[in-house]
Amino acid sequence: MKVAVVMGSISDMPVMQQAIDVLKEFGIETLVDIVSAHRTPEKLVDFSNNAHKNGINVIIAGAGGAAHLPGMVASMSPLPVIGVPVKSSNSIDGWDSVLSILQMPGGVPVATVALNGAKNAGLLAVQILASQNAALLEKMIQYKLGLKEAVLKAAEGLNN
Amino acid sequence: MKVAVVMGSISDMPVMQQAIDVLKEFGIETLVDIVSAHRTPEKLVDFSNNAHKNGINVIIAGAGGAAHLPGMVASMSPLPVIGVPVKSSNSIDGWDSVLSILQMPGGVPVATVALNGAKNAGLLAVQILASQNAALLEKMIQYKLGLKEAVLKAAEGLNN
Amino acid sequence: MKVAVVMGSISDMPVMQQAIDVLKEFGIETLVDIVSAHRTPEKLVDFSNNAHKNGINVIIAGAGGAAHLPGMVASMSPLPVIGVPVKSSNSIDGWDSVLSILQMPGGVPVATVALNGAKNAGLLAVQILASQNAALLEKMIQYKLGLKEAVLKAAEGLNN
Amino acid sequence: MKVAVVMGSISDMPVMQQAIDVLKEFGIETLVDIVSAHRTPEKLVDFSNNAHKNGINVIIAGAGGAAHLPGMVASMSPLPVIGVPVKSSNSIDGWDSVLSILQMPGGVPVATVALNGAKNAGLLAVQILASQNAALLEKMIQYKLGLKEAVLKAAEGLNN
Amino acid sequence: MKVAVVMGSISDMPVMQQAIDVLKEFGIETLVDIVSAHRTPEKLVDFSNNAHKNGINVIIAGAGGAAHLPGMVASMSPLPVIGVPVKSSNSIDGWDSVLSILQMPGGVPVATVALNGAKNAGLLAVQILASQNAALLEKMIQYKLGLKEAVLKAAEGLNN
Amino acid sequence: MKVAVVMGSISDMPVMQQAIDVLKEFGIETLVDIVSAHRTPEKLVDFSNNAHKNGINVIIAGAGGAAHLPGMVASMSPLPVIGVPVKSSNSIDGWDSVLSILQMPGGVPVATVALNGAKNAGLLAVQILASQNAALLEKMIQYKLGLKEAVLKAAEGLNN
Amino acid sequence: MKVAVVMGSISDMPVMQQAIDVLKEFGIETLVDIVSAHRTPEKLVDFSNNAHKNGINVIIAGAGGAAHLPGMVASMSPLPVIGVPVKSSNSIDGWDSVLSILQMPGGVPVATVALNGAKNAGLLAVQILASQNAALLEKMIQYKLGLKEAVLKAAEGLNN
Amino acid sequence: MKVAVVMGSISDMPVMQQAIDVLKEFGIETLVDIVSAHRTPEKLVDFSNNAHKNGINVIIAGAGGAAHLPGMVASMSPLPVIGVPVKSSNSIDGWDSVLSILQMPGGVPVATVALNGAKNAGLLAVQILASQNAALLEKMIQYKLGLKEAVLKAAEGLNN
Repeated sequence: MKVAVVMGSISDMPVMQQAIDVLKEFGIETLVDIVSAHRTPEKLVDFSNNAHKNGINVIIAGAGGAAHLPGMVASMSPLPVIGVPVKSSNSIDGWDSVLSILQMPGGVPVATVALNGAKNAGLLAVQILASQNAALLEKMIQYKLGLKEAVLKAAEGLNN
Repeated sequence: MKVAVVMGSISDMPVMQQAIDVLKEFGIETLVDIVSAHRTPEKLVDFSNNAHKNGINVIIAGAGGAAHLPGMVASMSPLPVIGVPVKSSNSIDGWDSVLSILQMPGGVPVATVALNGAKNAGLLAVQILASQNAALLEKMIQYKLGLKEAVLKAAEGLNN
Repeated sequence: MKVAVVMGSISDMPVMQQAIDVLKEFGIETLVDIVSAHRTPEKLVDFSNNAHKNGINVIIAGAGGAAHLPGMVASMSPLPVIGVPVKSSNSIDGWDSVLSILQMPGGVPVATVALNGAKNAGLLAVQILASQNAALLEKMIQYKLGLKEAVLKAAEGLNN
Repeated sequence: MKVAVVMGSISDMPVMQQAIDVLKEFGIETLVDIVSAHRTPEKLVDFSNNAHKNGINVIIAGAGGAAHLPGMVASMSPLPVIGVPVKSSNSIDGWDSVLSILQMPGGVPVATVALNGAKNAGLLAVQILASQNAALLEKMIQYKLGLKEAVLKAAEGLNN
Repeated sequence: MKVAVVMGSISDMPVMQQAIDVLKEFGIETLVDIVSAHRTPEKLVDFSNNAHKNGINVIIAGAGGAAHLPGMVASMSPLPVIGVPVKSSNSIDGWDSVLSILQMPGGVPVATVALNGAKNAGLLAVQILASQNAALLEKMIQYKLGLKEAVLKAAEGLNN
Repeated sequence: MKVAVVMGSISDMPVMQQAIDVLKEFGIETLVDIVSAHRTPEKLVDFSNNAHKNGINVIIAGAGGAAHLPGMVASMSPLPVIGVPVKSSNSIDGWDSVLSILQMPGGVPVATVALNGAKNAGLLAVQILASQNAALLEKMIQYKLGLKEAVLKAAEGLNN
Repeated sequence: MKVAVVMGSISDMPVMQQAIDVLKEFGIETLVDIVSAHRTPEKLVDFSNNAHKNGINVIIAGAGGAAHLPGMVASMSPLPVIGVPVKSSNSIDGWDSVLSILQMPGGVPVATVALNGAKNAGLLAVQILASQNAALLEKMIQYKLGLKEAVLKAAEGLNN
Repeated sequence: MKVAVVMGSISDMPVMQQAIDVLKEFGIETLVDIVSAHRTPEKLVDFSNNAHKNGINVIIAGAGGAAHLPGMVASMSPLPVIGVPVKSSNSIDGWDSVLSILQMPGGVPVATVALNGAKNAGLLAVQILASQNAALLEKMIQYKLGLKEAVLKAAEGLNN
């Protein structure tokens, strides 16, 4: 099982690192690369056409502004593609990347997460792998218990 | 392999039927149900807690307005949850359901598709299942070839 | 008479504290807790189903992003629920929490106040209690007179 | 116990009627009137200053466009005021009435419901009255059970 | 000739001062006051009903959030009312004050200027007075020549 | 006293006619013309530079989409310019014309009214003329009384 | 001189036909084709890489929703690319296609025109060709005179 | 070959400088000037009517807020006009300048680039000139190769 994490620009790394961290936490092998839809279109084609042949099961793609990377990868790969809208510097409040990734036409889905939601992209990739893997599913159940414990503890602190 | 398709109201069916149709086209077993986060919260809890125990691998959840169903299912189930924002009658242009489903907090992802994008939700569910199933992956590759053929044919018609 | 103030995360406290302060100012007993719709769904169910049995009259619920807490509490409790949209860090300018709380479907109202408007949530809770309590209503009348006096004083300072 | 339902224009009646119908369903006495903040400001002042003296416990106010009625009533009355944003003909998609009602300054809350959400305004008024009235609270619990039954029945129809 | 400059809160003064400065620059007598639609409704009524009797020709009203002051003054005064949307701290990017002031119903106009555009409100008041006053019109023509000179000078600096 | 009503296209006439009707109702002489900022720029310059020399006191300018007419007239004329954002066929919900007219830079105000608010533009022009004309001011007071009577009558019908 | 007009789907033709008509009117040779970024990515690459080698000078690309076609063509072709945002059926009011086409990253411009503005895309292509072609520039000057005549005529009709 | 870069205010220079830099990089002669649509309308008319007579081939125009400069230049010049929406200080998140420039009526195109996208405006001007100039086209091809190299290098750094 292997997840690719690609992004349109090195400047997306601070956001996308959260996806990489989650995948590491769950022990998932990851491939990290910069694939710019607009600046390296040949690499985009090559990556997208071959990911499933190279042992990759899920692709996470993050980009900002007129964010075409997730949708273009999805147009060429049969694998599930998770899109992370990144709020870049000249973005119009993030609406551009959100809508460029979310509003894909019928036939070519992108699994979109929240603005800058790379952490959730990592978790979604784990859930996708876990959907047919009992051990990983159990790990995910434990992870969710951990979230609960943290909130319950914070609540306790409140009442004391 | 089994996919659950749930929706907040029977009025969401015309949109959600497109997900069901796609799943049938790919021969995936589906469970269809109405689970209203706001009107049947107990059923919501029961469904969400037990889906993975009942042989379900992926959940598609559609809802409109302040659409809490996808996120609430995701809060309780370890499975991948695909959210379909439905443009309901008193919606503010669909922004309400889009943002209610997309902007989930860290820890609880929902794989959001386009407004009324139930067809893509069905395809994404297939891709998730296909990510670890070579036969289904091959079917998805063929499906994408079919999309291409249709566009090429339309283009041909244009030039003659 | 007792008002519950719940929030989705400890990070909502700086905003929600304003509701707690107002309730104290009016001498209303308050219960403060963290109840995350997405991380502690069982606690959510338990809290919502039992609030009215535990002597609570009004519930104030604050959350950010895809803010499901107020609506989910409202789906299970017969009590009036006041929702406070909190502008969280990765919010899309607050629109996500506003629309997630405001646009509830028919049958399940949430009394929504302004973005970060926890102070008004506290005052609204007091007004709800005061609507059948003459002494509290008189206090509210006095509070409003206080607001007036403050503005008149500021205006006076302007003209001298 | 008595609820006032006021609206800025007779053209708001088709929407506001839903609030009146809910209140009737719960057996709540209602006073219905047209009070235009912009065309009958004296009536607005008179109504708002005296509602609580005239036996009214809760006020529902609906208006469209630059909707000032709910906020202006709230500025003068100590009672809880529920605001219904109405989507009028020259509205900019309803955003104008939503924001004009929701974004009240600190000190003067309006309990805002969804765009055209008059039904929920009626239910919220009932909940406010029920928060200190056990019999009415029981009725509200039964109402919610009714909602649940309807959804469960629709779901059943689906599976047969 | 006299112009009233009113605002909803002392916190609007840094913006509204620009209107006062422009009026001074043109030698127009001004009356400055704080009139909160929501906190001092009686003062609002009194001010609005009597402005034209007190020698005022034009009213400038500034407010933020759910900004009702300009529209409410316009509902009671026969004078032209200029509205200044102020971007307040918890505003949703200023959209709330813009729409609350701009989208007035038929019969009750408010002459709305840009977000925080108090300087233009002052100039518009001068233009209104100048529309029937040849000397003031000439001053306005000179003012516009001054704007032109400043831009031409800046352009010159650019080319040298 | 004379008011010019100009519009960018003959297709704006159904909206702009409401301004003309109001001005007639008040007995104000009007000049109606089509002046396209984008298609007849010379006419725009000529009209704007000379309006105040031709006995015009107030200018009403309506346009849709990227609506430059009101602002360009205001850039050249010392007279008060009232802008009417018209919702044209390919408009993005009217936001384009609203923002193109409202958000003028410091130094060049446009008195903006609501989307399609030509009736209010007419009334505002009357108020501007009335601000220094006692007889017209009295007419405006009577007009507002008429608005009040109509609402009171509608309210009466409601209660009988 | 040759202009390519490509679109993402045959359903974009009613809008894009307006560009083709303008080009014919100016006697410019055109190549019309359907190139779906998401369904025929190989054709997209082939078309984009070779357009300038095939005698094409300007490319017009239209698409709706998450509209990636114009930006992807621009990423691979050195030619000027004009993007037409098409308002498709499930669009969120057209914002998705507008932002997906407009907000391109530094290095890869797309010359974006208004929503559904294919006519202007055709004219812009002519202007681009005319910028170094005196005869075509003269034609464009005549075209603009025609626009002016039409408006002046409509205005005349108004005054008679 | 010559490109004019004009802007509405000296305050737009930090953004517009990026266009000038790109043009220099490609060795294109440039004319830089401040032409305010609202403050120097005569200069606007003069510049627009004569640019094509003064050896200019392409015009880049940048402005903020209600940005009328690009559209007004386009109304008078037969040359291709590139519009740069500048995010000015009192802008409503940049939406005002984007829509004021983008949504031009049929007949008068403006080639709009991203918010603050002056760099792309410069590149688009080069592409327009290159569309009929083989040497410049080759330079543009080399520029794009440079973009690719930079991304590939950044990606390499990532994997080592």
